Amino acid sequence: MTDIQPQKVYDVVVVGGGPAGLMASLCLTTFGFNILHIDERAHPTTAGRADGIQPRTIEVLRNIGGVSTAPVPGGPIVGQSPISGGGVAKKMISQGVRVYEVAFWDPTSTQKLARTSRAPSCPEFVDVVDNYTLLLHQGLIEHAFLDEIEARRTVLPDAFPTPPSGIFRPYTLQNCRTLPADASDPLRSTHPVETVIEHGDTKVKHTIRSRYLLGCDGAKSHVRRCIAGGQVGDGEWQGLITMQGEATDIIWGVLDARVKTNFPDIKYKCLIHSKSEGSIMIIPREANLVRFYVQLQKTEGGKVVSIARDTATQDICIARAKKIFEPFDLEFGYVDWFSVYQIGQRIASQYTLDHRIILGGDATHTHSPQAGQGMNISMLDMYSLAWKLNLVMKGLGKPEVLLPSYEHERRGIAEELLKFDGAYSRLFSGRGPDASQLPGGVDAEKFIQMFKQNAFFTSGCGAIYTANDLNALPGASVMTGPYARAFNPQGVKLLAGQRLIPGRVTRVADGNTVRLQQEVKMNGAFRIHIFAGDLRSTMPALEGFAAFINSPASFFNRHRSSAGVRSSIVDGPAAVMNHEDDAKNIHDINPFFTFLTIVGTHWYEWEINDLPSPLRLYRSQVYGDALFDRRVPEAGTNAPLHHKFGIDMQKGAIVVVRPDGYVGAVVDLSKDGWLGLNDYFAGFLNEKLAPVPKARF
Amino acid sequence: MTDIQPQKVYDVVVVGGGPAGLMASLCLTTFGFNILHIDERAHPTTAGRADGIQPRTIEVLRNIGGVSTAPVPGGPIVGQSPISGGGVAKKMISQGVRVYEVAFWDPTSTQKLARTSRAPSCPEFVDVVDNYTLLLHQGLIEHAFLDEIEARRTVLPDAFPTPPSGIFRPYTLQNCRTLPADASDPLRSTHPVETVIEHGDTKVKHTIRSRYLLGCDGAKSHVRRCIAGGQVGDGEWQGLITMQGEATDIIWGVLDARVKTNFPDIKYKCLIHSKSEGSIMIIPREANLVRFYVQLQKTEGGKVVSIARDTATQDICIARAKKIFEPFDLEFGYVDWFSVYQIGQRIASQYTLDHRIILGGDATHTHSPQAGQGMNISMLDMYSLAWKLNLVMKGLGKPEVLLPSYEHERRGIAEELLKFDGAYSRLFSGRGPDASQLPGGVDAEKFIQMFKQNAFFTSGCGAIYTANDLNALPGASVMTGPYARAFNPQGVKLLAGQRLIPGRVTRVADGNTVRLQQEVKMNGAFRIHIFAGDLRSTMPALEGFAAFINSPASFFNRHRSSAGVRSSIVDGPAAVMNHEDDAKNIHDINPFFTFLTIVGTHWYEWEINDLPSPLRLYRSQVYGDALFDRRVPEAGTNAPLHHKFGIDMQKGAIVVVRPDGYVGAVVDLSKDGWLGLNDYFAGFLNEKLAPVPKARF
Repeated sequence: MTDIQPQKVYDVVVVGGGPAGLMASLCLTTFGFNILHIDERAHPTTAGRADGIQPRTIEVLRNIGGVSTAPVPGGPIVGQSPISGGGVAKKMISQGVRVYEVAFWDPTSTQKLARTSRAPSCPEFVDVVDNYTLLLHQGLIEHAFLDEIEARRTVLPDAFPTPPSGIFRPYTLQNCRTLPADASDPLRSTHPVETVIEHGDTKVKHTIRSRYLLGCDGAKSHVRRCIAGGQVGDGEWQGLITMQGEATDIIWGVLDARVKTNFPDIKYKCLIHSKSEGSIMIIPREANLVRFYVQLQKTEGGKVVSIARDTATQDICIARAKKIFEPFDLEFGYVDWFSVYQIGQRIASQYTLDHRIILGGDATHTHSPQAGQGMNISMLDMYSLAWKLNLVMKGLGKPEVLLPSYEHERRGIAEELLKFDGAYSRLFSGRGPDASQLPGGVDAEKFIQMFKQNAFFTSGCGAIYTANDLNALPGASVMTGPYARAFNPQGVKLLAGQRLIPGRVTRVADGNTVRLQQEVKMNGAFRIHIFAGDLRSTMPALEGFAAFINSPASFFNRHRSSAGVRSSIVDGPAAVMNHEDDAKNIHDINPFFTFLTIVGTHWYEWEINDLPSPLRLYRSQVYGDALFDRRVPEAGTNAPLHHKFGIDMQKGAIVVVRPDGYVGAVVDLSKDGWLGLNDYFAGFLNEKLAPVPKARF
Repeated sequence: MTDIQPQKVYDVVVVGGGPAGLMASLCLTTFGFNILHIDERAHPTTAGRADGIQPRTIEVLRNIGGVSTAPVPGGPIVGQSPISGGGVAKKMISQGVRVYEVAFWDPTSTQKLARTSRAPSCPEFVDVVDNYTLLLHQGLIEHAFLDEIEARRTVLPDAFPTPPSGIFRPYTLQNCRTLPADASDPLRSTHPVETVIEHGDTKVKHTIRSRYLLGCDGAKSHVRRCIAGGQVGDGEWQGLITMQGEATDIIWGVLDARVKTNFPDIKYKCLIHSKSEGSIMIIPREANLVRFYVQLQKTEGGKVVSIARDTATQDICIARAKKIFEPFDLEFGYVDWFSVYQIGQRIASQYTLDHRIILGGDATHTHSPQAGQGMNISMLDMYSLAWKLNLVMKGLGKPEVLLPSYEHERRGIAEELLKFDGAYSRLFSGRGPDASQLPGGVDAEKFIQMFKQNAFFTSGCGAIYTANDLNALPGASVMTGPYARAFNPQGVKLLAGQRLIPGRVTRVADGNTVRLQQEVKMNGAFRIHIFAGDLRSTMPALEGFAAFINSPASFFNRHRSSAGVRSSIVDGPAAVMNHEDDAKNIHDINPFFTFLTIVGTHWYEWEINDLPSPLRLYRSQVYGDALFDRRVPEAGTNAPLHHKFGIDMQKGAIVVVRPDGYVGAVVDLSKDGWLGLNDYFAGFLNEKLAPVPKARF
């Protein structure tokens, strides 16, 4: 199809063109790296597969934003981000449908099937802007990523050529390994990973060298097999990395179809248990489709057994669905996609052996699809890894701290998912420990209770990381240092290891109503939020903090990138008024940190220029806090965000948000606080940078 | 550029490719008509010109929506609208910047220039979702329209070919006239308008016949001159249509530029009065531009006089701006656009002579640009005319009632604008009646007061129509009929002649949170809102209304289009479950009406199927009312929209919203109410339809 050939040396090789691989490619492209992205399929997905995007994933996609490629009159503007609007998120939202509410249907004493309960898809207590599950087929999701990657590549100053989709396909991975150090091959010190790929049609092979390789090639990962060893076919169960867990004999069919029905909730997500015919989950989908997850069981000699996987056809699936839907009519029309799966949960024993070839997504964890989690967690695996690789590859991050934190954080989430999914999918299939003794019987009440209890986790907002060098919680090493008491001030509700909670503020430079959480797009920088409270009390502390930042001893000046190394292709804030040169300068000082100042005192009572430098130089990141928030009605318009976050107006606080939107550290707005932050950053950032190899950003 | 030639016969000729002409073309294309759209310019606008889009205009653009041209798996879906998402509105919002707040700067006793006041761009009491002014140059606005027109043309089954932009250009209007009836030319009865156009380069002429011609060709309208008579050059002041009003000697320059400045509010809309150097208005713009409106005056012999229009250069404008900005620094960089204008207000004595050739936009009203109103009112002129032409051209509307209502409604708005603009622009230029006697002095307090008082009007939400056959207010003929007392029930806050106020509801069919106002996209249909209140009280009335609608005597059955005539290319709601055939049938019954049922009783307590037919057949337009609205906190989640609209939960009400989003009639949910609606619709709709000529929709 194309005669563009792979280069010999890349920053990162990404194997697999599904959502996880695409997220890796999008993030690493944004950070300015040259990626070799291969997929063994000749084309992106065209229908079906994963279809549910959860609230936290939408929040993340919004934060990645969208590159505007429109020409700028008078030439490019320095200090103005090319990111505008929602990009991937907006595209998906305009193409998908939304589920706000879930209905539970069960047999009752009087009816064969009745709506017995309802639950919000994302309950009210989860504080998230997009409080719904977004549904669209995986191909639309992949195309939204591909379009955005392509748009960003046009902004990269020296991107290697790729085929139009950004992915070399069809290419299969033949082998990959990390070469041992060898003085005769100086490239090994920086690019030790060797990958052999083969074109699916021409069988032409290429041998590639890269710094890292990301294995996003699914449950039957070739990458995993290459590094784990073992035989073809049993590589999952033997070798250096094994898949741990178990499968059941429970078989489900899944199909996307148009139907005619008098079932009233056909446009809702429904969890339907029949009395003795098994269970169904339906989900509304784009283009008037309905997704059916159908339990495939039959009665054999008075016993209910699963239909064998290799005999489960689309027709059988449709027949089972009609049976479970009784007494409602259900006629099937156009069928867009059909597949069969077996309930099971497995997790890789290790995500990486050497922190050079790193697995993620389905290559590390598999489970049943009903909870709508897999694609989300897989994408977020790569989102979580990318910014760490960015810091490491630019010489600023300590690889020995940052890279292990990937598995530490993401494995915790995957384990929690598997635990939930195991119980949930068995209970839904009528195999819960306390299920009724009737064949196929289901403990509906227990199932509904479990659904509701896990909604914080399934929204994605409940993916919580534990203490490590990046999350300054009790147990983290920084919490044993001299400034431990300045961390996690009493009453503050923002917690390290959890996402920054949303809130609206007024951007003082232009009076716009904005969402604080989305103000800095994913650009590889740490977002230092200074909650300044009441300026009459906090001004001395603000001045102290500013003087500290300006001093050579501050983290801002100790953890510097080499000149010309940018954090990403997304520019920092336009800093000083419309003084474009100044904007460029402030950003160039250190693009890996950015400052946001949120003031509790109404902004009519002070000017941006009253703030100490450098805070006032981040002019477009100074905010007033007077917008009503229905979650804290008692605060009215009197600093509601300070109130919601539990920040003392007389004391203020400093909240460090990592490049992935997670809170990393919360400290007092005091000398101990900012000295504590110095220790925090010193835990995973280098002080004296080695020259950055092949620095382009 | 293209060898596509105009046809000989069209439904409508639109002259002028600015925002008014584009709105006409977009709406009429949506309604399924073949348009000949010409513009004398070779290309769309590339910079500058009109740049402010007001809240009500954004609301309208959102309601026009966006056509999705993505292929649908399994083929097109009957009963599902091809409109998805925001279309024109979203495109503009993603490209523009927002003004939420205005700052006033004046000389004070201690400072040469100080911020003396602030005001919201759209005050809190205006209930509108997009509560800001959106700013982007006119070319971006035109391109958003052109893209959407092109997308919709692909949905038209037998669209005439046009050049890629949808507009034939450069073409000048040579002549246009309405031919008198002539039995030897049967086309004259349906297509009496004759237009002669000439290609700007080749000078090739075409003579076109159409049903209507819309003159959207600006202040120096050729269309107006053709029908008004008089000499070239003085056609504005003589002939059958004259421009009435006056000009001043006040000259302003306007430029779009990038600047460096230490003026703190450079990203706000600012109204700046210097002590003796004149006034400036600045507006932030896309791509880091700033628009400057600069009063061009000088001191001559101790007296302040305007600079002559023909001597006003960009350099003079920049020099004046720097002077007025003192003591702040202001350095100009790239200049994107520059122009000069003279303050004045004029309005056409008539908008049309025969209701066949009809003027709108700048061809009917001109004024100064500072209030940011002109483009908005011009676009809305055509938005307001298009749905009336749709009804008339499809044989359903009475031309003698609907077409005169265009001028009745829109002239009222234009007159109000001119009155405001005359006072506002003179006051801003220091020529107000009570202005200080100092040369160039300005009564700042009076000016700020006027700005604030007119914010409801300038947001566009205060464009209120008076009583006529379409607006059932006291004075309308329907209000002298037997059911007059059923109109405008006491306490109801929705008023005929005003836009439907926004509010969020829950769509029962899928549980989605939606904006009621935006649920039915502009599709030419009347939206009959049944506020059903408490079903325990209102069910008998609902059943009575449903029986009435089903009877041959109802407006729904009396005002029918011919078979196969659709209201627009935008389909009606998917009606009965996912039963696609039924959906098609219900829509085909009468696409010029659609029913939305809003129930006060929580939807957990009833099913859509409990509602009488036909209300339950409009399944995707049945809503629950339990979403908190901060404007009626006292209602909590207990039917807040009923509460906000002042609708009695025990009685309910019926609210007719016209295809342009204006409330047409509010009646009791009672027999007198629906019989009153029968009279209302009979006032402007035909009962027995003549065969529709060349019916395609």
